[in-house]
Amino acid sequence: MKPRILELRQAVLDKNDQLAHALRGQFEAAGVLVVNLVSSPGAGKTALLEETLRRMQARGWRVAAIVGDLATENDARRLARSGAPVRQIETGALCHLEADLVARRLEGWRLDEFDFLFIENVGNLVCPSDYDLGEAVRAVLLAVTEGEDKPRKYPPLFHSADLALLTKIDLAAAVEFDRNAALASLQAVAPHAAIFETSARTGAGIDDWIEYLAARRRDLNRNA
Amino acid sequence: MKPRILELRQAVLDKNDQLAHALRGQFEAAGVLVVNLVSSPGAGKTALLEETLRRMQARGWRVAAIVGDLATENDARRLARSGAPVRQIETGALCHLEADLVARRLEGWRLDEFDFLFIENVGNLVCPSDYDLGEAVRAVLLAVTEGEDKPRKYPPLFHSADLALLTKIDLAAAVEFDRNAALASLQAVAPHAAIFETSARTGAGIDDWIEYLAARRRDLNRNA
Repeated sequence: MKPRILELRQAVLDKNDQLAHALRGQFEAAGVLVVNLVSSPGAGKTALLEETLRRMQARGWRVAAIVGDLATENDARRLARSGAPVRQIETGALCHLEADLVARRLEGWRLDEFDFLFIENVGNLVCPSDYDLGEAVRAVLLAVTEGEDKPRKYPPLFHSADLALLTKIDLAAAVEFDRNAALASLQAVAPHAAIFETSARTGAGIDDWIEYLAARRRDLNRNA
Repeated sequence: MKPRILELRQAVLDKNDQLAHALRGQFEAAGVLVVNLVSSPGAGKTALLEETLRRMQARGWRVAAIVGDLATENDARRLARSGAPVRQIETGALCHLEADLVARRLEGWRLDEFDFLFIENVGNLVCPSDYDLGEAVRAVLLAVTEGEDKPRKYPPLFHSADLALLTKIDLAAAVEFDRNAALASLQAVAPHAAIFETSARTGAGIDDWIEYLAARRRDLNRNA
């Protein structure tokens, strides 16, 4: 990139970081655990989230979601079937969410009425990396249908995540998924990340991921 | 986006368009049909291309490929197995290829020694839309594992394509792929696009796509 563009990009990122920092303070004060879901398009963010919202509500948790897409409200409609409050951000040509888009979309919600807030980012393995949304947990999804080497091919996003969800594991045999290769690729760029092997269709692994989030929320509120 | 950034972005795009225009002239003069492959990560660009390169060479066509990735040379290695000349562009943090990256990577190749040149773009459903690489044909891939509504959710890229390849159709039943919904979504944003239903694994549809490219190359050379 040209120096002048790099400079402007840095200014945009700095401003985003400031706003994300302020948002993080608000989330912590309200005791809500915020999760930023990132992945390539079609990795199964919406299906995972719909099932997660259902199960969390069945356990009595208060949950909400914000979903970003270039166009259409398809995902917001799918998530709303869970009964949780859902809001949509249409990003137009923007390939990621930014902190100010999230901040504006939160208006009118009382954060302390939620235990968990999920932000489903735009499907993209590059753009969302550098944009902190004030989340406590960044979760990256890798579908078994995508190819085992994606983490090594898109290192910044995978490296930026706190945890990784292998998704659509019910299709592993059909696509001859090489589990060891995928785990090695994740290990190479995100050795710090917890890994959950999940299927929204069969429900495999979903409760483990919910337990993890519940534990993270307890930590958040213990430290507050 | 901020006005100053939009302005700079437009200047970058204008410069890219000029260079792409010059490249297109070179490609046409050399009689080489250039194909720009775009899709989300994991839609199967490399698998489709490897099989395409093999079959085209078996028919006596002279083919070459350039492949863009943020990191790793995995795809270049896979494509080189076909025996075709392959070059890699590592884009670092850039989520798309640009005309000047392609122009520089072409140095040392004699274009008139190729009948077809394939450019495998970075896996991304947003960033590559606006960057003309001088190609004659832009092909967008949509894997049956990705979700049928991707064209409506990422309209600019699908709209910019000349043709669409449904990929991994051998998995259609396993993922309960809704073919009519996918075709309707493509029709909504890219009514001009030819559609090929393919599987690199079974070989379905690959010869039809090659026939299409061969016909496009004949048109190119008839008009030259």
